[in-house]
Amino acid sequence: MNAINLADKLATFAEHWQPRVVGQFNGHDLMVVKVKGEFVWHRHDDTDDFFLVLSGRITIRLRDGDVSLGPGELFVVPKGVEHCPVADEEAQLLLIEPTGTPNTGNAATAAPRHIV
Amino acid sequence: MNAINLADKLATFAEHWQPRVVGQFNGHDLMVVKVKGEFVWHRHDDTDDFFLVLSGRITIRLRDGDVSLGPGELFVVPKGVEHCPVADEEAQLLLIEPTGTPNTGNAATAAPRHIV
Repeated sequence: MNAINLADKLATFAEHWQPRVVGQFNGHDLMVVKVKGEFVWHRHDDTDDFFLVLSGRITIRLRDGDVSLGPGELFVVPKGVEHCPVADEEAQLLLIEPTGTPNTGNAATAAPRHIV
Repeated sequence: MNAINLADKLATFAEHWQPRVVGQFNGHDLMVVKVKGEFVWHRHDDTDDFFLVLSGRITIRLRDGDVSLGPGELFVVPKGVEHCPVADEEAQLLLIEPTGTPNTGNAATAAPRHIV
């Protein structure tokens, strides 16, 4: 069993909004992702949505206001709450979601799960 | 709803091995903790144990070897696996465990849950 180095995992890919699974925890996928630009408005009816910023900055738009996050800051979007992540410049994040959760809230439009 | 700044939360206390709850995620507590020295050997029969190092270094001793972690590295101790975290110098961690999990694996010896 080895430590998971998040920077090393992030160095293996360049695509934005394409999370990579780096580990598992209690039925959840631990994922790193690079983001830039605006994602889509979506919600997850069955799960909270965990964001921890590793580098860069993101804004999580909510229908009743924005939450701005920098390195070392986290935010949990409660289940059922619509949100739209946005990053002016590239940011790198740790995400946690139950294994199989579509990142757009919709299996038809979700990114495939890549494991690194 | 606001971002949770982990460094700000860590600045509110000094005690070692006394996790502070900073948020909730899918029935889990998100916690920050300062550690130094050797904890106790323990296991959690019902949950994996998530460690992400924010600063410093820790070693997670396992019965079949050690895992060493620095900043930006994470490790998940599988449920039921005995482990003993150790830090030669102070380290700061993000921990995730189901709400109510005793940090020693035993309610009688666990640290109380503080919320910051």
